[in-house]
Amino acid sequence: MSEKRKIGIAGASGYGGGELLRLLLGHPYVEVTLATAHRQAGQRVDAIHPHLRGLYDLTCVETAVTDAWGALDLLFLALPHKESPRVAAELPPSLRVVDLAGDFRLRDPQQYARFYGGEHPAFELQKDFVYGLTELQRDAVGKAHRIANPGCFATATLLGLGPAVQAGLVQGKIIVDAKTGSSGSGANATAGTHHPTRDASFLAYKAFAHQHVPEIKQLLFDLNPQWEGGLVFQTHSAPMVRGIFASCYITLQKPMSMQEVRSVYAEAYAGSPFIRLVEGSPNVLWVRGSNFVDIGFALEDDQLIVFVAIDNLVKGAAGQAIQNMNLMMGWPEETGLLSPGACP
Amino acid sequence: MSEKRKIGIAGASGYGGGELLRLLLGHPYVEVTLATAHRQAGQRVDAIHPHLRGLYDLTCVETAVTDAWGALDLLFLALPHKESPRVAAELPPSLRVVDLAGDFRLRDPQQYARFYGGEHPAFELQKDFVYGLTELQRDAVGKAHRIANPGCFATATLLGLGPAVQAGLVQGKIIVDAKTGSSGSGANATAGTHHPTRDASFLAYKAFAHQHVPEIKQLLFDLNPQWEGGLVFQTHSAPMVRGIFASCYITLQKPMSMQEVRSVYAEAYAGSPFIRLVEGSPNVLWVRGSNFVDIGFALEDDQLIVFVAIDNLVKGAAGQAIQNMNLMMGWPEETGLLSPGACP
Amino acid sequence: MSEKRKIGIAGASGYGGGELLRLLLGHPYVEVTLATAHRQAGQRVDAIHPHLRGLYDLTCVETAVTDAWGALDLLFLALPHKESPRVAAELPPSLRVVDLAGDFRLRDPQQYARFYGGEHPAFELQKDFVYGLTELQRDAVGKAHRIANPGCFATATLLGLGPAVQAGLVQGKIIVDAKTGSSGSGANATAGTHHPTRDASFLAYKAFAHQHVPEIKQLLFDLNPQWEGGLVFQTHSAPMVRGIFASCYITLQKPMSMQEVRSVYAEAYAGSPFIRLVEGSPNVLWVRGSNFVDIGFALEDDQLIVFVAIDNLVKGAAGQAIQNMNLMMGWPEETGLLSPGACP
Amino acid sequence: MSEKRKIGIAGASGYGGGELLRLLLGHPYVEVTLATAHRQAGQRVDAIHPHLRGLYDLTCVETAVTDAWGALDLLFLALPHKESPRVAAELPPSLRVVDLAGDFRLRDPQQYARFYGGEHPAFELQKDFVYGLTELQRDAVGKAHRIANPGCFATATLLGLGPAVQAGLVQGKIIVDAKTGSSGSGANATAGTHHPTRDASFLAYKAFAHQHVPEIKQLLFDLNPQWEGGLVFQTHSAPMVRGIFASCYITLQKPMSMQEVRSVYAEAYAGSPFIRLVEGSPNVLWVRGSNFVDIGFALEDDQLIVFVAIDNLVKGAAGQAIQNMNLMMGWPEETGLLSPGACP
Repeated sequence: MSEKRKIGIAGASGYGGGELLRLLLGHPYVEVTLATAHRQAGQRVDAIHPHLRGLYDLTCVETAVTDAWGALDLLFLALPHKESPRVAAELPPSLRVVDLAGDFRLRDPQQYARFYGGEHPAFELQKDFVYGLTELQRDAVGKAHRIANPGCFATATLLGLGPAVQAGLVQGKIIVDAKTGSSGSGANATAGTHHPTRDASFLAYKAFAHQHVPEIKQLLFDLNPQWEGGLVFQTHSAPMVRGIFASCYITLQKPMSMQEVRSVYAEAYAGSPFIRLVEGSPNVLWVRGSNFVDIGFALEDDQLIVFVAIDNLVKGAAGQAIQNMNLMMGWPEETGLLSPGACP
Repeated sequence: MSEKRKIGIAGASGYGGGELLRLLLGHPYVEVTLATAHRQAGQRVDAIHPHLRGLYDLTCVETAVTDAWGALDLLFLALPHKESPRVAAELPPSLRVVDLAGDFRLRDPQQYARFYGGEHPAFELQKDFVYGLTELQRDAVGKAHRIANPGCFATATLLGLGPAVQAGLVQGKIIVDAKTGSSGSGANATAGTHHPTRDASFLAYKAFAHQHVPEIKQLLFDLNPQWEGGLVFQTHSAPMVRGIFASCYITLQKPMSMQEVRSVYAEAYAGSPFIRLVEGSPNVLWVRGSNFVDIGFALEDDQLIVFVAIDNLVKGAAGQAIQNMNLMMGWPEETGLLSPGACP
Repeated sequence: MSEKRKIGIAGASGYGGGELLRLLLGHPYVEVTLATAHRQAGQRVDAIHPHLRGLYDLTCVETAVTDAWGALDLLFLALPHKESPRVAAELPPSLRVVDLAGDFRLRDPQQYARFYGGEHPAFELQKDFVYGLTELQRDAVGKAHRIANPGCFATATLLGLGPAVQAGLVQGKIIVDAKTGSSGSGANATAGTHHPTRDASFLAYKAFAHQHVPEIKQLLFDLNPQWEGGLVFQTHSAPMVRGIFASCYITLQKPMSMQEVRSVYAEAYAGSPFIRLVEGSPNVLWVRGSNFVDIGFALEDDQLIVFVAIDNLVKGAAGQAIQNMNLMMGWPEETGLLSPGACP
Repeated sequence: MSEKRKIGIAGASGYGGGELLRLLLGHPYVEVTLATAHRQAGQRVDAIHPHLRGLYDLTCVETAVTDAWGALDLLFLALPHKESPRVAAELPPSLRVVDLAGDFRLRDPQQYARFYGGEHPAFELQKDFVYGLTELQRDAVGKAHRIANPGCFATATLLGLGPAVQAGLVQGKIIVDAKTGSSGSGANATAGTHHPTRDASFLAYKAFAHQHVPEIKQLLFDLNPQWEGGLVFQTHSAPMVRGIFASCYITLQKPMSMQEVRSVYAEAYAGSPFIRLVEGSPNVLWVRGSNFVDIGFALEDDQLIVFVAIDNLVKGAAGQAIQNMNLMMGWPEETGLLSPGACP
């Protein structure tokens, strides 16, 4: 490649932005030439993210400064919900965009209103966005100009449920019991992430109200319009920093063998370099810091449990965003993303 | 009370034994006069449990030394499975016993063989034991001479499911997604509790094979012989030391209001000093180190989720054992057990 | 005792207040009849501190409501620095007070100004306060009407250095390398206690500027006016919730044997129920949640290292405050304070 | 580069071996063609290290199988102490070796005997090894055929002390208070790394007896034969998985300004791509998973404190080993090593 493509990150001070900066250091075809922030505008990105010290010579500009967009080949929006569409509305239509926020994921404005509250600042742009759950939407992503990058919980859940729903194996309602680390709460300190009370805590939250539910259902219905649609989705806070672990309880239409189940998933994920079907249970530790998705199974008669482990900030955010960028740009999907995390 | 009752602990070197020693320090009517161990026989209990340093002047004797049993008013067996019934077989029949192991919980020898493996060293004694899930078995415990203390996961699960099953509210199968801290693995170091790999881990284990399943089903059928019996029970390791958090997914026979659900539980647990019905989700942190059981609910139409948080070593083991002792001895159930844990 | 004494806690919503509430539940001679708060005035104390749920029927009143002070036998001030003396200035002079803040610890107003900044709201009251490092000030505390309770770092450091300095064993400057858990930062969420970045962090802070240095020096000079006064005191954040571990590097006037060193400390702490001299190193885990102080030693020729482990919120705050109350009230020092923490 | 160089790892199942495997995935000029193990011989490296699943197609052979050595360009020995020299004695003399164990670090056999115990299996080979603290030994490493890679604590300490000792700034004895995460204990579960008791622990260990002391002194004397030689080195266990934080207390020959101190270090580390001089304190979090070394300073008159943070498994082991390999092979020092860790 003669010259590196120019990449921008709007919202470079959060955890999503930080992971984009980290991961793109290892990408052979791009360089980050623009980083924006709001409260931390004027600061160097390696002052905001001290682990990157010395690896970037780049200072955050105010997010609203819009002249710079034109010089980019692709822009990642790593902004809070509601703020993302405000910026999107100002962008040159020709600019490729991967949006990590939730605003452009839902096609149904009523679902958006119910789960995100208030009005959508730019719903008319939503139709330009492809929902970027890469493994289940690879072709659409490859042709897309704008991507709505999935939520972290939605990514884990959809990768666990997608093949079974698509193959019509599911009977009755599905229960998904999902657990996340504290980095899912973002880079700003809150009562819920105060170390003394978060450190040894385990609790449930947002019962029947998590904003990732509608995007999960939307894609499952796309995969299989005949799906019955029953889904109970419950999120929990676990006392770790990184990782989502989803336990997906599925009643099968009829008893299957483990080999049959594994075949369905193996076929669905053939050619998916980040999916690893494991024996027994996966573990969030083994995918931490990486874009890998470890999936395991337990089975007894017609009761299937699918276990999915991802890193919420990588496959659940920045990594999948880059994976989508790769497809949009015509590069191999795994470009720059194959590094494993450091373990233990 | 003129004189303190004499209490023995067989297996004082494990975490169950350590918590019995700690909690009984605060009990007004008893003193621990005998502690046994095997590998650590000959060591002072406060050398084995350094947090108790200076609070006990007691040295562990070899567990097999049986002459001493006769002087006791009550013996706690805090031994590994299989070892417990071997000791039980040698005890004076008149001695009151609370057994923390699993060997005397199951009335069905086939279930025992399936989940614990191998032969039962003294199954003929099983009929003398009452299953001591205190809140759901209070009368039987009060008349008992020997108690089979419930498992930690079984305690959390039964307290979450008991009232709903008893009241006949449940339709179809129940899903219980349970999470435990590392102290549930006991005091001996193993690959699964190695700090570097356990610290940021989350994983599932023992799918469809956990030994607490049969005791859960046994008591639920006792509470309601009409119960359909469908139960999927899945355990997970969470990266904390203490606590069990059980998320119990129940389909109701018909939609109920939150108030109706809470009433069922409030009634079932009236007069139960350790049960606290909370708004929203409980948190293992708030029950850590204590015998309290925090229970919360989420509800949408006919879908109920009951969340239960306990300390696995207290309400899930040593605390409930003492609670049972109190009832057996005719003392108020909460005697010596009301101390909250230290938070944060 | 015919009737329980009435105790107030000003600032019951913080961690110091929470621990006073918890520990006083186990105290036979007192009851908490007044709790105040500012932002959380009007809330029940067991809503603010969920682990105490059901154990208190008490609602926080606004701290400024001063009529209630008169009915108390003793008031704990668990308020932020600067706020504490503002309240103290309004109290009836006859009221016994134990102040957990730093404002009344220093006799030298210039030291106060240097380390706490700004003006002292009521320096004229300082002379009424005795510095309450119990083990080294037992007689003065016993006669005191008002106590300035030591800081957490100062407590660990003084208990490690006191006997050596008092006995004149120290040559040249002392180095104290101290480490604390996150609860030392208080109950309010800040960037420094954000779980994702605090969880696996270890860092130093406040070099040459920690506000506990002057109170350490003040008491060491009281213990031995001949002491040379060289002290380097460096604090660190460790990724745990509770505990202070102080490593105190002392050059002895001449080589001593381990037995000689231990004798000096054993004598100094004879009759001190919370001091435990241990073999090898103490560990913050074994004192967590309790008022115990574990002290160990390493020695080579004239180089002594004294290791001290305390719980920052108990012996470092609320526990020592109660220990001081006991002496002020003429009760045995250990009343209500002998409970060990829950381990592991 | 036409063809990748062939690299072997003896002892691929431990944490040092695992990190070599991980880091070498990102190295452009080498491939790992041989991995050995003892207990885990016959297993795939990605079964032993599940985070590497799918990234290696390599099975561990028995370490003793020696025919394979000849095909290698360089061999990393990541074996336990004592075992490493036994293997080294069998290697072809022409083979380049980087040894991560301690056996070839000390030139003085008496020091070896004192700190490592027992006899050295192959002391006659020691003279062929260059001590590989890269930044302070760059030229020697570049010419070396065999490298004794420094210990993790020694690396942190020497990088903190080296410039000051070399420049003759130090007066009297130096105190180093060092803290490590649990991964420093290796991959095998032991009582000291049992999660329930390690999780919230902080303790000191190996007072006046740590085996890294002689290698620290040896290099400091090499850097400055006039150095007085006083060093107190104390290690502590902190409740984190990765990282070493060393607080180095130095009395300067005379008061210096911060700018003067920083200049000494900046000069000493000019051209050292992994050294980052930071404002205030470094933090183990920001170097976790990377080969970076963050160094900060606190200063008051003649009292200097140097704070050093490294990742014990990267700069403290596998990363520095690769850094040394790069110099031995004539490649840029930072080749394949510039990736930052994932934070938070």
